[in-house]
Amino acid sequence: MSQSPLNIVILAAGKGTRMYSKMPKVLHEIGGEPMVQRVIDTAARLNPQNICVVIGHGKEQVLAKVKRDVVWIEQTEQLGTGHAVKMALPHLPAEGRTLVLYGDVPLTDTATLQALLEAAGDEVGLLTDVLDNPTGYGRIIREGEKVVAIVEEKDANAAQKAVKETNTGILVLPNAKLESWLGSLSSNNAQGEYYLTDLIALANSDGIAVHPVQVRASHLAAGVNNKVQLAELERIFQTEQAQELLKAGVTLRDPARFDLRGRLKHGQDVVIDANVVIEGEVEIGDDVEIGANCVIKNAKIGAGTKIAPFSHLEDCETGANNAIGPYARLRPGAKLADDVHIGNFVEVKNASIGQGTKANHLTYIGDAMVGSKTNFGAGTITANYDGVNKHQTVIGDEVRIGSNCVLVAPVKLGNRATTGAGSAITKNVEDGKLALARARQTVIEGWVRPEKPKK
Amino acid sequence: MSQSPLNIVILAAGKGTRMYSKMPKVLHEIGGEPMVQRVIDTAARLNPQNICVVIGHGKEQVLAKVKRDVVWIEQTEQLGTGHAVKMALPHLPAEGRTLVLYGDVPLTDTATLQALLEAAGDEVGLLTDVLDNPTGYGRIIREGEKVVAIVEEKDANAAQKAVKETNTGILVLPNAKLESWLGSLSSNNAQGEYYLTDLIALANSDGIAVHPVQVRASHLAAGVNNKVQLAELERIFQTEQAQELLKAGVTLRDPARFDLRGRLKHGQDVVIDANVVIEGEVEIGDDVEIGANCVIKNAKIGAGTKIAPFSHLEDCETGANNAIGPYARLRPGAKLADDVHIGNFVEVKNASIGQGTKANHLTYIGDAMVGSKTNFGAGTITANYDGVNKHQTVIGDEVRIGSNCVLVAPVKLGNRATTGAGSAITKNVEDGKLALARARQTVIEGWVRPEKPKK
Amino acid sequence: MSQSPLNIVILAAGKGTRMYSKMPKVLHEIGGEPMVQRVIDTAARLNPQNICVVIGHGKEQVLAKVKRDVVWIEQTEQLGTGHAVKMALPHLPAEGRTLVLYGDVPLTDTATLQALLEAAGDEVGLLTDVLDNPTGYGRIIREGEKVVAIVEEKDANAAQKAVKETNTGILVLPNAKLESWLGSLSSNNAQGEYYLTDLIALANSDGIAVHPVQVRASHLAAGVNNKVQLAELERIFQTEQAQELLKAGVTLRDPARFDLRGRLKHGQDVVIDANVVIEGEVEIGDDVEIGANCVIKNAKIGAGTKIAPFSHLEDCETGANNAIGPYARLRPGAKLADDVHIGNFVEVKNASIGQGTKANHLTYIGDAMVGSKTNFGAGTITANYDGVNKHQTVIGDEVRIGSNCVLVAPVKLGNRATTGAGSAITKNVEDGKLALARARQTVIEGWVRPEKPKK
Repeated sequence: MSQSPLNIVILAAGKGTRMYSKMPKVLHEIGGEPMVQRVIDTAARLNPQNICVVIGHGKEQVLAKVKRDVVWIEQTEQLGTGHAVKMALPHLPAEGRTLVLYGDVPLTDTATLQALLEAAGDEVGLLTDVLDNPTGYGRIIREGEKVVAIVEEKDANAAQKAVKETNTGILVLPNAKLESWLGSLSSNNAQGEYYLTDLIALANSDGIAVHPVQVRASHLAAGVNNKVQLAELERIFQTEQAQELLKAGVTLRDPARFDLRGRLKHGQDVVIDANVVIEGEVEIGDDVEIGANCVIKNAKIGAGTKIAPFSHLEDCETGANNAIGPYARLRPGAKLADDVHIGNFVEVKNASIGQGTKANHLTYIGDAMVGSKTNFGAGTITANYDGVNKHQTVIGDEVRIGSNCVLVAPVKLGNRATTGAGSAITKNVEDGKLALARARQTVIEGWVRPEKPKK
Repeated sequence: MSQSPLNIVILAAGKGTRMYSKMPKVLHEIGGEPMVQRVIDTAARLNPQNICVVIGHGKEQVLAKVKRDVVWIEQTEQLGTGHAVKMALPHLPAEGRTLVLYGDVPLTDTATLQALLEAAGDEVGLLTDVLDNPTGYGRIIREGEKVVAIVEEKDANAAQKAVKETNTGILVLPNAKLESWLGSLSSNNAQGEYYLTDLIALANSDGIAVHPVQVRASHLAAGVNNKVQLAELERIFQTEQAQELLKAGVTLRDPARFDLRGRLKHGQDVVIDANVVIEGEVEIGDDVEIGANCVIKNAKIGAGTKIAPFSHLEDCETGANNAIGPYARLRPGAKLADDVHIGNFVEVKNASIGQGTKANHLTYIGDAMVGSKTNFGAGTITANYDGVNKHQTVIGDEVRIGSNCVLVAPVKLGNRATTGAGSAITKNVEDGKLALARARQTVIEGWVRPEKPKK
Repeated sequence: MSQSPLNIVILAAGKGTRMYSKMPKVLHEIGGEPMVQRVIDTAARLNPQNICVVIGHGKEQVLAKVKRDVVWIEQTEQLGTGHAVKMALPHLPAEGRTLVLYGDVPLTDTATLQALLEAAGDEVGLLTDVLDNPTGYGRIIREGEKVVAIVEEKDANAAQKAVKETNTGILVLPNAKLESWLGSLSSNNAQGEYYLTDLIALANSDGIAVHPVQVRASHLAAGVNNKVQLAELERIFQTEQAQELLKAGVTLRDPARFDLRGRLKHGQDVVIDANVVIEGEVEIGDDVEIGANCVIKNAKIGAGTKIAPFSHLEDCETGANNAIGPYARLRPGAKLADDVHIGNFVEVKNASIGQGTKANHLTYIGDAMVGSKTNFGAGTITANYDGVNKHQTVIGDEVRIGSNCVLVAPVKLGNRATTGAGSAITKNVEDGKLALARARQTVIEGWVRPEKPKK
């Protein structure tokens, strides 16, 4: 394989009119990331000298969203793919090769591109696809293992129209020829644009061979022009991710109902039920079970933890052997030790919870530090907000909080403290003490209950 | 195209034995509407002189459910399709054409029917389908562009069995011939029924051409005889709707996990995550995001509003830039202004909520009028029901309701009022005042907590 | 059909390295049951003399999980399928036939096996499959209706490689020959194992015919070696179950989004929306509707009951015409009479609830006995746990519990008792009485509310 240095130009200036969006096309997401980000990350894995990204429509949005150091090149007028690459010329050295990728072709993988680079050597490489129905695509005209022309639909004769190998637009070019070839492009066509495709003819004229490489599946070179295509590639991407997880031993009850928009690190014997969505960076330990319909984002889940259906975790961490849900919500800053139980209709936010503590029903724990083996009665509320500031609630070990209590922060419950059901706890409770704050029960004599009129 | 007046007869009298249902077959739903309703609505879009719907089994249920003015015709005995159309004869004028549709063939579209009417002119038009496996269906015997016979499976010779073009039953007939043709039908067959199919032979005898039109996809002429077929057409219908939304720019994270049972009006840059169900009339503004697993029925959602997963909205309205859910339930009569936050395990019913107000946790707001920039502490309950009547709670602007308060209606909290956590508020609170209704916290000295016996 | 007695040997000793699991392969689940359990249950339906299950890897786990009386045979070394069956020889009588099945081939059905037994008579029967791509599988070499050899991929010539009929491994053998044939097997091959496949050659040498039977679909003989295959068979299994329910008249809004992991008994006119999971033994009456995303396990649901989305039912029972959910959780021991309403964010555990009683919002009912026509105000909590023991709450008929009350068990509310909103009820309330336990509302004069500093 040629070892000449590699440069990459990514075309990302288009508007994407048929996306019907205020956002430039290349920012629409596949697997939770902007398409152009995926293309840049793939490009980076090829270790190029530099990556030039040509932007135009919505360039501020692109600059704000993309995370990676690249050479940004502005194309103020969209005058075609040839013109776009020309904009990058000042950043391309006289030697080496330039690979042209597209910000709206998100699923090209490094294996495909490495095969293309290898086939090209120091000449030209062109990625092609074989389509059952090639109508509308530029046809690849070969002589043996070389491409001698690309014929557009409108210019093709019957024999050429029968060709099923088509141009994907992805190609690698020798830098030594780039300036002269790009300078020779003409915009004398219906659109008045400069087309990269025309470089194939120029290469042939110059006696530089054009080596075709066929993609192993169409989606590797498929572009996105509308939301139909975006959804198609999203599902292909998700299917591939699901297959990888299955092969690695994760049990997915229904691979077609699983979404991973980020990265999932997992242990052994992980079981994920239908319709789970995983976002961001998620790490799950051995023997974790995730019930149907859970949504989990940026979370670390300890070994043996069971997450029951309808749970929603975000920016949080559980220890080992937790029992979470159903209908549990762990919000940012929830940090659970081992053996913790968080049950139905319970919300935990910015709170650390010690080993073996349980909050099983209808509870809100916010801005709190909770010890171990403590029990929250059903309906417990930490009142952490006075309308201006958030205050902390500190709860010790083996505390028993009665049902329907409100703990008004800042407040502290000592180890083994107990609060009576229905109390508003506004003052600290010392270790081992029982605090009550509720009224005496009375019966209203002579009271007559309102009743519905008899019909 | 022939301009002779159009009448439509819809056959909807069947029981649908294999549906195993108390409901007549034509009332089973596709996309949330009875099949016969869909057929009637399609018929109406052809602007016919009249629409005759022939009903029989479960006719009261059909009459009760169908919303549109049609001529109802009762067929007391089910003696076949020919007999059913005969029942409609008194409502069909001597001139013009009659199109025959079926209440259990729900997805026929107007484009198909217009093509059929155009092909038929003032003669006969017959909708046909080409099936890979035509076994069991009546085969279309053509001479050039005309149908000369329909041969049933049992009567077909080998050559005829090889024909893949089949009869769909949908046809258009000249009224002038209708009475005589229907009168000539015989029930001399295994079922003892009068078949419309036999009209093809009668037309040929009379020298009236039968013009075939092939459907562009089988589902356009597919009938429903059991729940397997109902589910198949439901998914085709949902897929088509999803494709339309995608083409219009809506982002559907998974088009195969999206259900629309009604009408969705939408702005630009709408994102709908997996497994969302939309019912009735729903309108969503620009930049709205709907999280996974939401169920939304008859709702209007303002621009920029984000609805987190597991939210359930029904007969309600949100302003712009609301943050709803996860696990939020907006019930009938919830009317939210802009910038409102409704968080987890919060229910709002028959209540207006002002701009910027927040109810983020474990709260029930029912029968209330709430001002702007008010904050509901976690666990707030409006006690709106005394067992007989529902009373109203009125809450002003910038009110701060302490956590775990119950507001016993009828009650009013003035602007900038505050209530202490854990209070039962039974009397009005004036503007700017702090109301408390809770007992003093005490410690029970000498109390010994029950403990589990040591093992 | 031969009536000679039947024995069944099930091979279940493998580790399943590519499952990447601590659990032996045959315990991985299809439709909520271990694969080997399914194979044993299928075997049992053939009424054999005995069922021998050969176990090895993880045998303690298998013994602990499988529910049925079988002859357990330990294979301490895994020396191939022939060796495994040899281990069972002491349990196989001298007469009759032995059917060999596999614990990791979970979907073989009795119809297939009966056809195989019938074809075999008292000779040998071999189950085969016809694959589009047979690469890697042993090819079936026939002479007419008999199998004369199985040729492995590596030994096959071009003509043999073109054969698409392959060996499934499932076969039936005459016991009279079993000992001598198994004794003749050689481990002189690459793996050093004894292969059952070699019996085909031995049968042919002995002049015993080998009768092939082709499966009607590949999944009936498909084995599971990794989680990809496990997921594929799971979806096939679920699709088949869904089709059966549809045929029986159940409306499934999306058969591809339905999971049944157990048994579902159902009445007429049952409607199940998308993404429902049913586990264990579930029985649902006529006219029951189950909303999207519900999870239901071991439950009995009375006729006419509507279960709204996001509900979670487990080990519980509802009467007729209940309104459950959305977001209702019925936990073990919840037993609801007719016309009961359980609304959003309500949990019921180990409690009986009488006819017409309503708990519509944010309520926890645990360890309780509740009469009829009682109303739970929003935010009611039964405090059933003192940290050591669970106590019972007894509530009569037509009781009105005020919003945000906590009922501290053991406690009893008599018939037609009422409690004021926000009360902590610690003592019994007599019939017809109103009990209050809340503090007087006061206004704090001169209090100044904390405010955010003006910017």
